[in-house]
Amino acid sequence: MSIITILTDYGTTDSYVGEMKGVLLSAAPGATLVDITHSIPPGDIASADYVLSRTWAHYPAGTVHLAVVDPGVGGARVAIAFRARAHFFVGPDNGLFSGVIRGAEVEAVVLPTPRLAAPTFHGRDLFGPAAAALARGEPLGALGERYAGIPRRVSGTVPHHEGKVVVGEVIYIDRYGNLITNLTPDLVPVYASLEVESLIVGPIRTTFGDVPSGSLLAYIGSGGTVEIAVRDGSAARRLGLGVGGKVKARLG
Amino acid sequence: MSIITILTDYGTTDSYVGEMKGVLLSAAPGATLVDITHSIPPGDIASADYVLSRTWAHYPAGTVHLAVVDPGVGGARVAIAFRARAHFFVGPDNGLFSGVIRGAEVEAVVLPTPRLAAPTFHGRDLFGPAAAALARGEPLGALGERYAGIPRRVSGTVPHHEGKVVVGEVIYIDRYGNLITNLTPDLVPVYASLEVESLIVGPIRTTFGDVPSGSLLAYIGSGGTVEIAVRDGSAARRLGLGVGGKVKARLG
Amino acid sequence: MSIITILTDYGTTDSYVGEMKGVLLSAAPGATLVDITHSIPPGDIASADYVLSRTWAHYPAGTVHLAVVDPGVGGARVAIAFRARAHFFVGPDNGLFSGVIRGAEVEAVVLPTPRLAAPTFHGRDLFGPAAAALARGEPLGALGERYAGIPRRVSGTVPHHEGKVVVGEVIYIDRYGNLITNLTPDLVPVYASLEVESLIVGPIRTTFGDVPSGSLLAYIGSGGTVEIAVRDGSAARRLGLGVGGKVKARLG
Repeated sequence: MSIITILTDYGTTDSYVGEMKGVLLSAAPGATLVDITHSIPPGDIASADYVLSRTWAHYPAGTVHLAVVDPGVGGARVAIAFRARAHFFVGPDNGLFSGVIRGAEVEAVVLPTPRLAAPTFHGRDLFGPAAAALARGEPLGALGERYAGIPRRVSGTVPHHEGKVVVGEVIYIDRYGNLITNLTPDLVPVYASLEVESLIVGPIRTTFGDVPSGSLLAYIGSGGTVEIAVRDGSAARRLGLGVGGKVKARLG
Repeated sequence: MSIITILTDYGTTDSYVGEMKGVLLSAAPGATLVDITHSIPPGDIASADYVLSRTWAHYPAGTVHLAVVDPGVGGARVAIAFRARAHFFVGPDNGLFSGVIRGAEVEAVVLPTPRLAAPTFHGRDLFGPAAAALARGEPLGALGERYAGIPRRVSGTVPHHEGKVVVGEVIYIDRYGNLITNLTPDLVPVYASLEVESLIVGPIRTTFGDVPSGSLLAYIGSGGTVEIAVRDGSAARRLGLGVGGKVKARLG
Repeated sequence: MSIITILTDYGTTDSYVGEMKGVLLSAAPGATLVDITHSIPPGDIASADYVLSRTWAHYPAGTVHLAVVDPGVGGARVAIAFRARAHFFVGPDNGLFSGVIRGAEVEAVVLPTPRLAAPTFHGRDLFGPAAAALARGEPLGALGERYAGIPRRVSGTVPHHEGKVVVGEVIYIDRYGNLITNLTPDLVPVYASLEVESLIVGPIRTTFGDVPSGSLLAYIGSGGTVEIAVRDGSAARRLGLGVGGKVKARLG
């Protein structure tokens, strides 16, 4: 019996996650349910995309990843299930699988809406049952018609050069207030100096202990891109920077 | 081995949930533990009742539902376990099972307080062990004396008519700021128009996409009653309405 | 297959817990993962120590306790795994196991840092794999060299006497705003009267119901020490007291 990971914006206070898990365990007895998060800001597809793209590959092949951040629930957006890199994914085709499908071969089907599904809770009534079916071994093709399109991909922003400066931006802010950017290591040589707003952060460090407590630093984060942090503090609070904020690497 | 669902107001920051789960897994090895929520506002029996009443039926028969929102812990309130509709329930008899037992046949026992139970943590020392016993297959009757009473039922408010207006009220507000009311679909015909305070919300829609982003709408929610929402926003914030707030359906 | 309990300060919004669980389930298929909490305030080793010290013993012998609150990640602090009282523990040697090792025989090893470990995410790349190895039955000695030191112990504060007054302090504040102190029952006889700041709280009670709603009370908490609470309220908010605040027991 498979693992089902679950990522939503349902929060953990209401009944929604509990209802969905009941559906999953009723239809796929013995499945292992793993919460990725339920605290995606309501409707924030970009955050969901980022978190999912960092987690799925750590799970065993055959895992079913159920991801429901679905502001268009019950509307025209397509409900899909697909296989990519030997994993299964189930959710709305609204861009939240952008990171997952980058460069992957994808085999997708359109999930029909069950007649009695609540139009505002497809996580319970449409996506949940589909994920459970995959977890208990039903073939993908049995879940719906082959998807003529390909899952929607929202292309992220890409750093650009301005003379001897590479300009990237913040794509995610984590619990610690660390600013995660889209600057990849190949764009930021060891002699580069990082800047945020007019502040000089300095060269790429290895880890927090390389600067005194309370200092700003830049390093290659565990997701593989440059991050800006304050040791024992919050860079987001210190700099007042949000997603989309500019981070520069000065090359000379 | 059974599923044990857990609903509390313990929060997820302290040791309480971890202690209780240790007790459960020690006494019922192999049980599947499912968190419904631990974020019920402290002592809010009505919210716990609402969330539990929406979740339990999605689980397989034989599931044990452990629900501990227990402001009277260690005092005179009765600790119970009962079977209803082929599910088991364990918790304080303070009204939190009102929704569960509505119209159900109930077989209940009184749980004795273990001599060494901490008077302020019956979730760990009294209810947890009882839930584990049921999960490992012990008969209900082995857990305590038959309960002479019936589990306490707090009767919810019921909509009433004022001429051609049906007046209901908000019974729960979810993470999205959606206002969940006690108005059932049979009370609100298709030609009715919903009103909140002096604002006209309009007729019952199917889903969020039926109105422009930022607009108020009414629809039959996934729990089976009328809800008021703002598409891509929060109706609770927009309207400043809380639990108990009036929602009207004008019939002509 | 073992139980792995997980305690971190990662929060539940980002990808970190999901990544770590993927590593655990890939390397120890079938392990039972239990979240103790991920909401330890960032870097708050003392809170992590307190929560862990209350939870581990409720789990079966052989359980692996993975605890990662690690502000010194990637720096000079030692990564360890150890056995104590037939349980396994994995995490940074920064004092967070102080409560666990008090009075216990400890057999510890130093965990080497994998060559490709992200220097800021040892929970995923170092501690996670070690916990998974223990969960699938690998001997402790196979994980690293025997630790020449002993795990670091941060000694907590101890109550002291000032004439006929025992002066303790608040060591933890829980979700309800209950103030948990380091005053043990042997220090506080039945005739003692508790005081906080200049307020008289009175003698030790059994449970909340022993005082009217809204009143302050003292009682022996479920962790075995004196707590100060407000029935149906928050003592932390009422008294404006934090960790380190003084609580006195007047003996005559």
